[in-house]
Amino acid sequence: METKEFRQSAHQLVDWMADYMENTSRYEVKPSIRPGDIKKQLPSAAPVEGEAFSRIFDDFNKIILPGMTHWQHPQFFAYFPTGASGPSILAEMLSSTLGAQCMIWLTSPAAEELEERMMEWLRDMLGLPKSFTGVIQDSSSSATLVALLTAREMRSGYSINQKGFEGNHRFRVYTSAQAHSSVDKDMKIAGLGIDNLVKIEVDETFAMKPDALRKAIDHDLQNGFTPLCVVSTIGTTSSTAIDPIDSISTICKKYSCWHHIDASYAGTALLLPEMRWMSKGAEAADSFVVNPHKWMFTNFDCSAYFVKDKDALIKTFGILPEYLKTPEDHLVNNYRDWGIPLGRRFRALKLWFVIRSFGLKGLQDKIREHISYGQWLKERIAGTPNFQLLAPVPLNLVCFRFVPEGIKDEGSLNEINAKLLSSLNATGKILLTQTKLGHTYALRFVGGSEKTTLGDIQQGWALVEKMATSLKLGKKDLG
Amino acid sequence: METKEFRQSAHQLVDWMADYMENTSRYEVKPSIRPGDIKKQLPSAAPVEGEAFSRIFDDFNKIILPGMTHWQHPQFFAYFPTGASGPSILAEMLSSTLGAQCMIWLTSPAAEELEERMMEWLRDMLGLPKSFTGVIQDSSSSATLVALLTAREMRSGYSINQKGFEGNHRFRVYTSAQAHSSVDKDMKIAGLGIDNLVKIEVDETFAMKPDALRKAIDHDLQNGFTPLCVVSTIGTTSSTAIDPIDSISTICKKYSCWHHIDASYAGTALLLPEMRWMSKGAEAADSFVVNPHKWMFTNFDCSAYFVKDKDALIKTFGILPEYLKTPEDHLVNNYRDWGIPLGRRFRALKLWFVIRSFGLKGLQDKIREHISYGQWLKERIAGTPNFQLLAPVPLNLVCFRFVPEGIKDEGSLNEINAKLLSSLNATGKILLTQTKLGHTYALRFVGGSEKTTLGDIQQGWALVEKMATSLKLGKKDLG
Repeated sequence: METKEFRQSAHQLVDWMADYMENTSRYEVKPSIRPGDIKKQLPSAAPVEGEAFSRIFDDFNKIILPGMTHWQHPQFFAYFPTGASGPSILAEMLSSTLGAQCMIWLTSPAAEELEERMMEWLRDMLGLPKSFTGVIQDSSSSATLVALLTAREMRSGYSINQKGFEGNHRFRVYTSAQAHSSVDKDMKIAGLGIDNLVKIEVDETFAMKPDALRKAIDHDLQNGFTPLCVVSTIGTTSSTAIDPIDSISTICKKYSCWHHIDASYAGTALLLPEMRWMSKGAEAADSFVVNPHKWMFTNFDCSAYFVKDKDALIKTFGILPEYLKTPEDHLVNNYRDWGIPLGRRFRALKLWFVIRSFGLKGLQDKIREHISYGQWLKERIAGTPNFQLLAPVPLNLVCFRFVPEGIKDEGSLNEINAKLLSSLNATGKILLTQTKLGHTYALRFVGGSEKTTLGDIQQGWALVEKMATSLKLGKKDLG
Repeated sequence: METKEFRQSAHQLVDWMADYMENTSRYEVKPSIRPGDIKKQLPSAAPVEGEAFSRIFDDFNKIILPGMTHWQHPQFFAYFPTGASGPSILAEMLSSTLGAQCMIWLTSPAAEELEERMMEWLRDMLGLPKSFTGVIQDSSSSATLVALLTAREMRSGYSINQKGFEGNHRFRVYTSAQAHSSVDKDMKIAGLGIDNLVKIEVDETFAMKPDALRKAIDHDLQNGFTPLCVVSTIGTTSSTAIDPIDSISTICKKYSCWHHIDASYAGTALLLPEMRWMSKGAEAADSFVVNPHKWMFTNFDCSAYFVKDKDALIKTFGILPEYLKTPEDHLVNNYRDWGIPLGRRFRALKLWFVIRSFGLKGLQDKIREHISYGQWLKERIAGTPNFQLLAPVPLNLVCFRFVPEGIKDEGSLNEINAKLLSSLNATGKILLTQTKLGHTYALRFVGGSEKTTLGDIQQGWALVEKMATSLKLGKKDLG
């Protein structure tokens, strides 16, 4: 592609992008297509001759766009939001043009130093102690894996790195029954085994019970296991439950366990001093992860991993082949040794653009606004007959279910709520997801996109009420 | 940021981007800065109030840009190139705007189906057998880790995933003494241990000796080890040595070892039928990785991982918590279960744009051109007194050293070549990196960026000759 075609096409895309950002709500949140609908429109072999970009972009509009779920839609209330704000997209434009590899200082000095500085900014913005050093990882799954591996190596005197598992270490890791499934996955990858992940009972707020944790550790010690790590959560995926970080830190200290805090989503709320109760005790933890790519308006991937003992981290992941040696090695951070992949994008740039463009205050305002949406919805559901709140709402995720009059059987309630969810999502006007809290099927409703307004939340909720009513009537008609 | 400011700023960036692409050669390839020079220009705390984008962009130009190593510079001859072509950047602009998570089909159906199709296109374009199924990973380090973990789980009957390492599996993995350091790192992460990575002797072309591999496996079997996997390389990082894939596949079959082929860089050359001799026998391998983000003009990250037994892959990484269940699970690929991180960018889009914009023929032309540069440089060095080629040049990476008359001591030669490298890189006009081949310090010169011409190679080489001469004179003066 000649630069002239690039320049022209890129200007055309910018207008498309700005229009898309203004009009995302015109699209169906989730496309009404069946598996295979897109693939069959794509030729089975690559073209031999190059094509003009205009033709490719036409196909993007015709084939790809109608098959996308629109994560930036203001009525996307599913999963957790994924960041994509103006300044973040602008940074992605520049970093993809520079096409720099940020594996070591020499390969992109400014990127390395900006990453250092951004991690300091973010640490301070979140009220984390200065004893934490940060590095950008691709995702929380990887960050938690990095924590488990560092704990594994410190505890084994780095012998597993060197010799592999020998004999039987019988390591145990503890997390709440509500923790994210990536902890399970990380147990597999690290060779620790899912059976050695002890899921600790939660209380009525779905937060880990410290007493149960203590008992589980004692029990394991009596049975010859070695407690390795506790993964606590600030804001679980199911219901944003907040584990009691302070008590867990105390227990970890007592038993010399690594304490890793997964604050992937809710960590961003620590920008607000009034929400710092959630992280009380975090200063005693060993590592902490928060994803600006979730609630901090920064494009995926951008997962901020903070660790106390950065030497242990580097010792766990360090390698130094001849072709990567540089004269500055002793003076700089070579982030290749701070995580799993060697290659790294220039990700600090988007964080810099986002933080400066919003300003700390701008970010705080947005997060406060989103939390107020959650509180509005909580109040609304509490006051609506035939609906039931299923979990506390510390932030902006609301778990609820529809409880039509006369239906008390849990199986039927689960079934009718699954039907409510699929009916809502089939409209294309809204997207929610589900979870299970205990044995109870719950709908999750979370509004945290940059463009989401209280009006969107209200409109979304009106649709839920309407759909539930029509399901109820349908049921009566059938009966 | 209001959409209006975004639109305006993005148009401004597009012009900057196009200008940058046209004028990359105006910059110093590597900045002449010291560690800390950039960081000290960045305030130590985040701004409280938001800032106008124009101010942020000014700082990008003033602070960041002068501290970047320019990977897209036509005289960047270091490491391996990293892709960033016009169509790829255009795709990144769109995917960052959509901000979609591509972890499962439902979260972005079109992205999932495009990824399926692109992996089929690429597989066929590279002459890989239809029995391979592809998935995009972030990097080769991760892809090789994925291969090792899948092999580990298949061989242990998925018991390590479940129970962790118990007793002593004594797994062994084999790779050449010239293999990429990420194999070492992956051995650590997977809990297999670096000591269990057997580095097989290489021949005079720096390719693995199959006889030595066979002997090492036999020796390990006699000593109670379990041969788990062989990682062969098509195009080593040091010198693009080509391991004898066919013989290695035969050995792996015989000993029931997983055969993983790391073709991260050189795999792209398989677009050329005349280069398929490199992959003879790959059809019998278990997995294969190639990075379009290296030599196929596609932005990082885009690592294509092909696997024969995709069920084993999914069984190794699969998790299915309630909040990720969808009605389509049995009909679609949920790529979340095909690798390490849960979150995934929409990466297939850039592959689609690149392949269609270049066309197969356009890609082939570029790769042939780059290989011809390598051959030109090889001939040139062979014909230049006081320079020595240090490895075969099957592609476009040339390993060489300067051998001034009268200097025969290897230590002095290593020293003078290290000095030559640092003097060259200090000019800012060129960037080379070094490696060690055996005990010999070698300079690496690889030209594979989209914009690099034969003229750039010639100009770069002229500088090497000139610098070497001046070093020699300097030495005489000192003597």
